[in-house]
Amino acid sequence: MQQPATIKTLGVLLFPQFEILDVFGPLELFSNLPDRFKIILIAEKKGLVAATTDISVNATADLTNTPQLDILLIPGGLGTRQEVRNQKLLAWIAKTAKESELVLSVCTGAALLAKAGVLDNRRATSNKINFNWVTSQGPQVTWIKQARWVDDGNIITSSGVSAGIDMSLYVIQKLCGRDIALHLSTITEYEWQDNPDHDLFAAQA
Amino acid sequence: MQQPATIKTLGVLLFPQFEILDVFGPLELFSNLPDRFKIILIAEKKGLVAATTDISVNATADLTNTPQLDILLIPGGLGTRQEVRNQKLLAWIAKTAKESELVLSVCTGAALLAKAGVLDNRRATSNKINFNWVTSQGPQVTWIKQARWVDDGNIITSSGVSAGIDMSLYVIQKLCGRDIALHLSTITEYEWQDNPDHDLFAAQA
Repeated sequence: MQQPATIKTLGVLLFPQFEILDVFGPLELFSNLPDRFKIILIAEKKGLVAATTDISVNATADLTNTPQLDILLIPGGLGTRQEVRNQKLLAWIAKTAKESELVLSVCTGAALLAKAGVLDNRRATSNKINFNWVTSQGPQVTWIKQARWVDDGNIITSSGVSAGIDMSLYVIQKLCGRDIALHLSTITEYEWQDNPDHDLFAAQA
Repeated sequence: MQQPATIKTLGVLLFPQFEILDVFGPLELFSNLPDRFKIILIAEKKGLVAATTDISVNATADLTNTPQLDILLIPGGLGTRQEVRNQKLLAWIAKTAKESELVLSVCTGAALLAKAGVLDNRRATSNKINFNWVTSQGPQVTWIKQARWVDDGNIITSSGVSAGIDMSLYVIQKLCGRDIALHLSTITEYEWQDNPDHDLFAAQA
């Protein structure tokens, strides 16, 4: 008899001025597999976190009561400029990344991983408009400019917005199989760009 | 001297079990133009609205205190199955749509517009997995199956998820010009599919 698949806990970090599609692009997919993924939104303080003046999302865990995560996702956004100086948050990222099976970032979320030391001696990418700033946060990182996403084993980093959605389908393919990833992209009517090297925006960097 | 552009108010309806990317795909783009669009999240009751068990978003207006909207956006999602029977909500949609300059829907959001009578004698589309159910909500509507989005003047309806993002860039192009739409797609690194007839999923209907 086939064993039921275990549910993995996906923790998503929120901070003021996070980029909304970096969070909700991936979550559109992971949340459509509730039998496989439990999602927890985490912030420095529980409660509402403002992506913009008009858009706030509810964090149900804070840095001191985060449950054990299987997957950690760090989004990008304007707020990363502030958070790379937030030592408490960086310490949490370093510790949580070490304890998680898989670490993901979208866009300038890679700057937070880099500044926390998580990417040292690893291969990674970020979005291209902010590439110089992001890479300056991690001088020990092997930054890959032409990439939709970079799979470095237990750390997978992606470029901006839609690359984060494509990376998420890739992660779902790794964890749940290609059939489930393809089925998800079909029911959500999302045209999956599944080539990790496809990056029209690299020239912007 | 050039006049500053007026700010348009975009109201987005939230309801329990709304599809997160139907809301946050479009908002990723509109919220990146704060000089042109003010966003208001509206629900039957103000406060947290649960897209899923794990993901809640804050509505700051309810149906009785909605300010005058320039643009109304209705997302889809599982919750539409419930809301097509919500007479209070349907009455609000009918009234608000009539008073708005532009009405948009993503995915099964078209079912709510149809049931509210907003689409009668108009051309519209929806996502394809649920096409039969959506179209059954509006027998007086000219439903277009093969479409990424359908522009029927002051009502623009789109297919699922990424089609909603593509339609939003089209709306931004209409209201702000093509240069701004292209710039937005570039800085967010979103590959805009700007052909409204491109629909790989029509065969699913």
